[in-house]
Amino acid sequence: MENTEKTMIGTEINTDKYKNIKRHLEREMINLNPIQRGGILPTESKKVIYEYWDGYSVCDYCAGRLDQVETPPIHEYLDDASKFFGADITRPTHGARESKYVIMNSVCNRGDYVIMDGNAHYTSFVAAERAKLNIDIAPVEDYPTYRVNPEKYKERIEILEDEGKPIGLLLLTHVDGNYGNVADAKKVGKIAKDKGYPFLLNCAYSAGRMPVNAEDLNADFLAISGHKSMSGSGPCGLLSISNKNEEYSKQILKTSKKNIVKELEMLGCTSRGIPILTLMTSFAHVIERVNNWDKEVKRARWIIDELETFGFKQIGEKPKNHDLIKFETPILDKIAEHDKRKGYFFYEELKRRGIGGIRRGATKEFKMSTFGLTDEQTKYVVDSFKEIIENGKKENKLN
Amino acid sequence: MENTEKTMIGTEINTDKYKNIKRHLEREMINLNPIQRGGILPTESKKVIYEYWDGYSVCDYCAGRLDQVETPPIHEYLDDASKFFGADITRPTHGARESKYVIMNSVCNRGDYVIMDGNAHYTSFVAAERAKLNIDIAPVEDYPTYRVNPEKYKERIEILEDEGKPIGLLLLTHVDGNYGNVADAKKVGKIAKDKGYPFLLNCAYSAGRMPVNAEDLNADFLAISGHKSMSGSGPCGLLSISNKNEEYSKQILKTSKKNIVKELEMLGCTSRGIPILTLMTSFAHVIERVNNWDKEVKRARWIIDELETFGFKQIGEKPKNHDLIKFETPILDKIAEHDKRKGYFFYEELKRRGIGGIRRGATKEFKMSTFGLTDEQTKYVVDSFKEIIENGKKENKLN
Repeated sequence: MENTEKTMIGTEINTDKYKNIKRHLEREMINLNPIQRGGILPTESKKVIYEYWDGYSVCDYCAGRLDQVETPPIHEYLDDASKFFGADITRPTHGARESKYVIMNSVCNRGDYVIMDGNAHYTSFVAAERAKLNIDIAPVEDYPTYRVNPEKYKERIEILEDEGKPIGLLLLTHVDGNYGNVADAKKVGKIAKDKGYPFLLNCAYSAGRMPVNAEDLNADFLAISGHKSMSGSGPCGLLSISNKNEEYSKQILKTSKKNIVKELEMLGCTSRGIPILTLMTSFAHVIERVNNWDKEVKRARWIIDELETFGFKQIGEKPKNHDLIKFETPILDKIAEHDKRKGYFFYEELKRRGIGGIRRGATKEFKMSTFGLTDEQTKYVVDSFKEIIENGKKENKLN
Repeated sequence: MENTEKTMIGTEINTDKYKNIKRHLEREMINLNPIQRGGILPTESKKVIYEYWDGYSVCDYCAGRLDQVETPPIHEYLDDASKFFGADITRPTHGARESKYVIMNSVCNRGDYVIMDGNAHYTSFVAAERAKLNIDIAPVEDYPTYRVNPEKYKERIEILEDEGKPIGLLLLTHVDGNYGNVADAKKVGKIAKDKGYPFLLNCAYSAGRMPVNAEDLNADFLAISGHKSMSGSGPCGLLSISNKNEEYSKQILKTSKKNIVKELEMLGCTSRGIPILTLMTSFAHVIERVNNWDKEVKRARWIIDELETFGFKQIGEKPKNHDLIKFETPILDKIAEHDKRKGYFFYEELKRRGIGGIRRGATKEFKMSTFGLTDEQTKYVVDSFKEIIENGKKENKLN
């Protein structure tokens, strides 16, 4: 009786829609989406999720800071990651964009210029804007290669210096998300070093897929994406720091006046949950695949060779050095003009064949990746593409 | 033959330690750690993890921004969360501390003063320091209550105004993590409103456990922790915003010049993975428990009554209004002096009884919570405490 007058809260909200949520893109499909192929979890990481899925469970044995936790072995993992990436210090973050913001917010001063390449990801812009920095672009080559030209960084530095504008950072997109070009990081890093500016390499599409070594590439900082390329369950990433210039790490890892162990840029602790654990448990898998990177590149080149004979045109640098492939596909566009399903025919035909991850309705151009697929799956994908084109031409009476 | 000269990378790293990682605190134990009790996942949330554990899988049907994703129904969830919390706009974040930083970095100007209560969590300090703000404290009552006195905010405002110091924000810890005191948010909110300053309520220990309504409490912003109190798998949280003052939301949700849909303070997208999904799938469970909050408070009071007769002393406000209980335990300290296991006897005796989450070695004082336990489990915990004390006294010949 006593509870009848209690005001109930939120009971008008229909929560049925949050029950039995399924991933529509069936998990059994061959997924060609480049942003997803490097984030697929190995079994070891699925196992650890069962252990740590409850909130704050990684903090069972915390003595004050996430990166120093010994049980589970987060501290050891971060040291191993530093070794793996040729760096000195590594911190967990929520992702590559968060790693970039940490650097921009600590190493740069407000109003400084960040010079970034013309292929820079939107998050590089957003991070710089949030940190109230100015952005300057080192232009890339025109269509169809869009290659980064390291010399352009030197030009931009000289122009900005002449104009008396303060340069706070050089940022390079190691592998861009549009064309999958692999930029010459070593050269840009050398320019940064010679001119005395800090150099941040955005490794969202490189670290965890291909060999990346901060020391070899003259990089001061690596922004690494866990969910994009380290087989991590999102959101997670790493920030690896070279300690060659201790002035930088002092700024990045500055601690609180109130609580002297807590790092300001990490807001104390960052990835306090299963994401960091999946990075750890995926590490063996990641090391193995990085060592097989040559096979991935070979496969990408084979796909390009096969599909260009069928009327596709690969955009970006040639020969190809990465699994992310951008194609112009005038032949699909032509079929779409005649097919009663219009631009959706390609998506639907792929779906019928158990292939997903190509943007629905895209026929002029699309991006794809076969990273981590078996040779048999790759061949199946290419054969399916060919079959769809041939059928489309036949059914719509095209040549 | 061709691969024999390939340089192998990272193969010297022993990754065996990242295999079969188990949570040492057995998951079957009754866990009394206050930071973990509100983050335990319901079955519905464990189910959704199987669907979405791969990196970037929430982005299958993204049209440009996480908070607008319809499949899975993230957009709807955020609208429902706004309703539930009496706010107008809600964004996913990585946690309460990240929500606080968003507000401080966008609504305040560098050098502004943030007035916060003397019970403020360290992350409130860290967020303010990262945003390069000054911190001013509205002192709380002395030992043993440590209660927030809303009038102190008025005093601090007047002093700072007299000194010509710019006030950027009032921050109140709704429920603090040391004593579990429930602060009078409504009164502090009224002061903020009357004086014309924005008011941020840190709800890390309140929202998702007890009723919280931004409008009723005169709060402009709620910083909500997913892993602490919303049964979310960390790291995750929410930022709920009242749109009464549109000037604030305009600053908080400012978008990029480069990519006009991306919000700067979110770096485009925040919780791009399973954490946001667990928040959604836990929502029904959270609504139910918030409506049973009176029972949790009653239980906490019962525990205090029972244990104070056994020589424990509850610190913080009385009567108790929250599940987080702080005890001074001179009787445990006395037993520890005589027991051959010293301060560890209590931890070990609890462990033998399947109870965890009390800091190892703590005997002078400790924090605990029985949030979400059944009545039977609660009774078992209290009986175990009593038994350990009685045995300890007997075995060590104490009165």
